[in-house]
Amino acid sequence: MDQTIGLLGGGQLGRMLCEAANSLGAKIIILDAPFSSAKQVYSRFTHIDGSFTDPEKIRELARRVDIITVESEHVNTHVLEEIAENGVEIIGEDGSSTIKRVQIQPSWRTIRIIQDKYEQKQHLTAHKVQTVEAKPIGSTIEDLQAVGQIFGFPFMLKSRKDAYDGKGNFIVKKSGDFEEALEVLRSKDLYAEKWADFQMELAVMVVKFEEDTFSDARAATAVYPVVETIHRDNICHLVYAPARNISDDIRQNAMELARKAVGSLWGRGIFGVELFLLRNGDLVVNEIAPRPHNSGHYTIEACPTISQYKSQLLSVLGIFPSISDPVIPMTVPAAIMLNILGGFSETSHELLAQKARAILCAGLHLYGKDSKPGRKIGHVTVISDTMQQAETTLLPLIQLADNIRAERKR
Amino acid sequence: MDQTIGLLGGGQLGRMLCEAANSLGAKIIILDAPFSSAKQVYSRFTHIDGSFTDPEKIRELARRVDIITVESEHVNTHVLEEIAENGVEIIGEDGSSTIKRVQIQPSWRTIRIIQDKYEQKQHLTAHKVQTVEAKPIGSTIEDLQAVGQIFGFPFMLKSRKDAYDGKGNFIVKKSGDFEEALEVLRSKDLYAEKWADFQMELAVMVVKFEEDTFSDARAATAVYPVVETIHRDNICHLVYAPARNISDDIRQNAMELARKAVGSLWGRGIFGVELFLLRNGDLVVNEIAPRPHNSGHYTIEACPTISQYKSQLLSVLGIFPSISDPVIPMTVPAAIMLNILGGFSETSHELLAQKARAILCAGLHLYGKDSKPGRKIGHVTVISDTMQQAETTLLPLIQLADNIRAERKR
Repeated sequence: MDQTIGLLGGGQLGRMLCEAANSLGAKIIILDAPFSSAKQVYSRFTHIDGSFTDPEKIRELARRVDIITVESEHVNTHVLEEIAENGVEIIGEDGSSTIKRVQIQPSWRTIRIIQDKYEQKQHLTAHKVQTVEAKPIGSTIEDLQAVGQIFGFPFMLKSRKDAYDGKGNFIVKKSGDFEEALEVLRSKDLYAEKWADFQMELAVMVVKFEEDTFSDARAATAVYPVVETIHRDNICHLVYAPARNISDDIRQNAMELARKAVGSLWGRGIFGVELFLLRNGDLVVNEIAPRPHNSGHYTIEACPTISQYKSQLLSVLGIFPSISDPVIPMTVPAAIMLNILGGFSETSHELLAQKARAILCAGLHLYGKDSKPGRKIGHVTVISDTMQQAETTLLPLIQLADNIRAERKR
Repeated sequence: MDQTIGLLGGGQLGRMLCEAANSLGAKIIILDAPFSSAKQVYSRFTHIDGSFTDPEKIRELARRVDIITVESEHVNTHVLEEIAENGVEIIGEDGSSTIKRVQIQPSWRTIRIIQDKYEQKQHLTAHKVQTVEAKPIGSTIEDLQAVGQIFGFPFMLKSRKDAYDGKGNFIVKKSGDFEEALEVLRSKDLYAEKWADFQMELAVMVVKFEEDTFSDARAATAVYPVVETIHRDNICHLVYAPARNISDDIRQNAMELARKAVGSLWGRGIFGVELFLLRNGDLVVNEIAPRPHNSGHYTIEACPTISQYKSQLLSVLGIFPSISDPVIPMTVPAAIMLNILGGFSETSHELLAQKARAILCAGLHLYGKDSKPGRKIGHVTVISDTMQQAETTLLPLIQLADNIRAERKR
């Protein structure tokens, strides 16, 4: 295990990546604030303290590693492009200059396209991957009026960049909402999305283990089972693995669509593909994350030898094996993941955590982050022989999560 | 999660305990050398550098924690007894003295009895747990002669204390071996064991989650499946979970015997119980470890929400739930664990590790320890739908482990 990975971001996704890395003997250096979530569980090397958006810090990281990867798409892709294209300069003790080559995985191109949700959708459309219809627009009432006439109401007004967990989204229900929409999303580059009338939200984790892009869904990707996601306040609340009550056809199509989408992107890594199953039965890609994803946390317990985090490591390092069957199976029939969000007080979640620890078929993951209202501070995955049993087991924990939410909103 | 655990020893068992603790949000402070295996994966708190046998360091640890537990039975039980009975003195900034109560889990009594293998067997016999017949003896030729007449040949000559992985054992095959035996085990307190003519070695992990001792195998213990262990050079080589080719009766009896043995001990925790299945079909306890055990590593992947390490945490903290079914099930039909030992060079194991990383149904665990010839530096667990498939998958890795061993012996 010669190559060292540089990780931009030390949040919970980085933390679970580091847990996988400890086990595999993979070398990781993290760039993020001191005592960040990931740094707490991996102290084999001295990490770098600083912002993962700071160009000089990113270059400092690059000097110490062979491959840079991300736990967030909200990174500075211009520095990553510079590093990928020109390498990074290392000044020796004698003042001599050498250029070190560093890989960016997945490619900065992929991260840049995904960063801008409108460009992402343009890219998918260009590669014949069905997605939600979208239009870039200016920030005037007239622009919204024009879109309203084309898309009808409701439609989604979205920030092109830096949007997550529903932040940067506004549902425009009628022309009376225009002013508020523009106020909420002021000083953002915007685009509009046609309303997706979905019956269910699905998600698929895809591993891309070859460098180049390809258009064949069957090439150089592995895929985890299709899961069902339930959002609440635009934040992932529950993940059912596998998705309940969908036909085998839909399952197959969702996997193919997700693999095709990921195959169109550059570089290696793990990708979370969010899909809408529309009321008319069509599947469309909602968006793609070029990193581990909340909808893939369940793989830690349900695919215990090959979680999404281990897949990220193996693919980024270029050592993901060629496989005959692209579908990575769950070792249990059913799993449900519940996110734990911070409540009104710093200890609101403790009762939920306490109950979760006492359930032998539940895997609790606390992230070592300070609790703040609405912040993702942990999750719990229940595994079971049947989905019904998993639901019954999880129910009391869901009720406790509801209590935390109610408290937050009081 | 208010209580803080103090851990004596930061080797691989402590490391995997810390991995479970990170996830659960459990607080751990480790006493061991700087950069020890466990410290590399848990940096939420500042640990204590020093020897886990140093009385002053153990008291320093006790001042910072609520419960002390161990990853090895080779600890100073007199200091632990002192702390359990009298607490530990804390001198305030104003010079005032207060006494802090600290639990030892499992009890120092349990650790002390287990430490001395002869006393351990006496204890088991007194509690009607079948074990190997044993006699304490002096270190003279005449003592060995007398034992040879009673037990016949071969018999085992063993050091009562500080023995592990076959160190401290000598097989006395004939009276001509007496001198060599006494030379190899010189300056040790010795005992002799009647030769156990076993057809198979089995092991069972048992969780004891109540403080007091009890004689009923059904009380306050949970038990993992019966596994089969294959030793080589007295070191655990392979673990088959579940054990192959034994009857349900033997499985039941092994679990009952292991639970009865653990029930006779004081305090809470996880215990590894090694058993011999004799050629006549009888089961006897070989020995007990008051901590996670090599034969329980497979639980990380095969019981992914309740590994032996999580069971240690929950029981030691006193929050292991009451359960209706005492048997903790595997979520996969078959698992095999292979230990990775250091070879002749520091990188001998790298090829094995590399191959293991590329097997999607294999969980590799490297411990972050320097490789030394014969040292346990990692393990790999393969899970599968059938034992046969698991064996086929693991075979190339076993061959690589054989190569490392051959190299070491060259």
